[in-house]
Amino acid sequence: MRAAIFHEPRRIEAGDRPDPSLVEPTDAIVRVVIACVCGSDLWYYRGETPFEPGGPIGHEFVGVVEEVGSDVTGLQKGELVIAPFAFSDGTCPNCRHGITTACMNGGFFPMNGDGGQGEAVRVPLADGTLVSVPGSGHSDEMMRSLLTLSDVMATGHHAAVCANVQAGQTVAVVGDGAVGLSGVLAAKRLGAERIVALSRHADRQQLATAFGATDIVAERGDEAVQAIKELTDGVGVDATLECVGTGQAMQTALDIARAGSMVGFVGVPHGVELPVGKMFRRNVGVRGGGAPVRAYLPELLDDVLSERIDPGRVLDYETDLEGIADAYAAMDERRAIKSLVRVGTV
Amino acid sequence: MRAAIFHEPRRIEAGDRPDPSLVEPTDAIVRVVIACVCGSDLWYYRGETPFEPGGPIGHEFVGVVEEVGSDVTGLQKGELVIAPFAFSDGTCPNCRHGITTACMNGGFFPMNGDGGQGEAVRVPLADGTLVSVPGSGHSDEMMRSLLTLSDVMATGHHAAVCANVQAGQTVAVVGDGAVGLSGVLAAKRLGAERIVALSRHADRQQLATAFGATDIVAERGDEAVQAIKELTDGVGVDATLECVGTGQAMQTALDIARAGSMVGFVGVPHGVELPVGKMFRRNVGVRGGGAPVRAYLPELLDDVLSERIDPGRVLDYETDLEGIADAYAAMDERRAIKSLVRVGTV
Repeated sequence: MRAAIFHEPRRIEAGDRPDPSLVEPTDAIVRVVIACVCGSDLWYYRGETPFEPGGPIGHEFVGVVEEVGSDVTGLQKGELVIAPFAFSDGTCPNCRHGITTACMNGGFFPMNGDGGQGEAVRVPLADGTLVSVPGSGHSDEMMRSLLTLSDVMATGHHAAVCANVQAGQTVAVVGDGAVGLSGVLAAKRLGAERIVALSRHADRQQLATAFGATDIVAERGDEAVQAIKELTDGVGVDATLECVGTGQAMQTALDIARAGSMVGFVGVPHGVELPVGKMFRRNVGVRGGGAPVRAYLPELLDDVLSERIDPGRVLDYETDLEGIADAYAAMDERRAIKSLVRVGTV
Repeated sequence: MRAAIFHEPRRIEAGDRPDPSLVEPTDAIVRVVIACVCGSDLWYYRGETPFEPGGPIGHEFVGVVEEVGSDVTGLQKGELVIAPFAFSDGTCPNCRHGITTACMNGGFFPMNGDGGQGEAVRVPLADGTLVSVPGSGHSDEMMRSLLTLSDVMATGHHAAVCANVQAGQTVAVVGDGAVGLSGVLAAKRLGAERIVALSRHADRQQLATAFGATDIVAERGDEAVQAIKELTDGVGVDATLECVGTGQAMQTALDIARAGSMVGFVGVPHGVELPVGKMFRRNVGVRGGGAPVRAYLPELLDDVLSERIDPGRVLDYETDLEGIADAYAAMDERRAIKSLVRVGTV
């Protein structure tokens, strides 16, 4: 089959990989329809996090079940499914507590042997992992929104949950990438009354506003903190979503959080240090990590299918598998917020 | 008046200080009945945190209102009152959000000019700060429990709140000082089903058990983590209270917290580093700081007055102001969990 292959930083190309086949009786083989490139894939692309040369890459995809193992009971060939970026059994204590990314028997794509950016994927623990999409003949817009539930929309939601966003609150979102924009949408969905998006790019500011941002702060660092303090009478915001993963973004997030509030952080930390003394003095807490997408999928899926949210709008560039190199380059060069990769048909 | 005076590390003695008098119309003068020594005072006593030589010390006291400023409307001379360790106006945005320790017009004793370990204290923002105790003729046991509401019991409760303790959960408490023991009582009060107390001292183990601990772990560091993992089928606990403030205590707390759970931390951090990568991988969050005692006081006071909780049992040593040096030494040498200082009469 054809699939994206990571050769070295800045060289990810389509190539030939072995067709996946069932290994465990709990596996399913999924034929990929659409996939996308994650902000976290860029860490590998840019050489900031090591990646196995020659290996498959990608962890966000929507596809059709092609084959199921003998122990798979909840899925049938031909079903349209969303794959969370982590696979999980759904039954271990961590899964039962809703933290499917810490499944005691699970893992993360492409640890399974296939990346999401390819024609087919062996999905371990298929019953626990995959979520069927009801209905058929979904529009292209709907398919894009469904795809975001494999990671980015659920990750923005996780940031909002970790930040303890409550109805009526003032919320700030640090980061205007696809996750940050999804975080704006998630905060709006949870009832935030005022949403401050930190964004310097006109196109992203526009989408943030469409997703529910009421205020845009274009400044960075201390100036951003100053601007948000002014917007909030010197108090800071009730809940803060840190959707970047850099030290500066975390520092800004902690500085704009009001005393006693939480910062939800979902950007994979790179060079982040947590100033425990300052956090203690202001009673500002942090919680975050890889989003337990599988646990959030049912409620988010309902909202996508009923068109209450349209997170697919973050996908503003598209190509096919042969164009995968530019899917990465477009995001790296900020020509794209997030790149869609068309792989197969429903 | 007589009051404890900090001369240098390991030399805190009773001496003469000026009688306090009203400065602001929002002040009250409180005649101290009983006071106590805080674990955080020991940081100064041991020379690990700088302290102004010649200055007053102490921040936990119960007393009687002696005089009120012209703007004080809610307090009258002769009322028995509990003073939280921070003074706060009760009306600023941070106070309204329940974080009275971040009051925009407040501060911490003895920033007001008097320490709690003395015959009298000028209490700024008296209406917002002091809480009247209804009734009269309270027993000595009751008075001791009322005194713990000025800090230690409310701080244990804050750890439990920050750790998000819920009814039916398994909770661990790191630290068997007065705050840790109060944390056990607070977790029990919030409905925890299983409470693991980390304690190596027989007398503290006994009190922890009396306060609701169901399991005692006497090991430290990696061995403690191992023991708690065994108690919880390898999962870790649902909520963790870090009540020490050292790097090792925090590391243990983060290691025993189950994926997706919170560590509430209330020990003033000394040498604590937060491993953000590990926290991210396990979705373990932290929140803590100086307890907003004033916000918690009404509900805790109700439970003390109705004898549902008896936190005064942590006070297992007593002396008077002239014996203040030994009140510190007893805690420093672990002869005492917490020292009561008898100052005046009701």
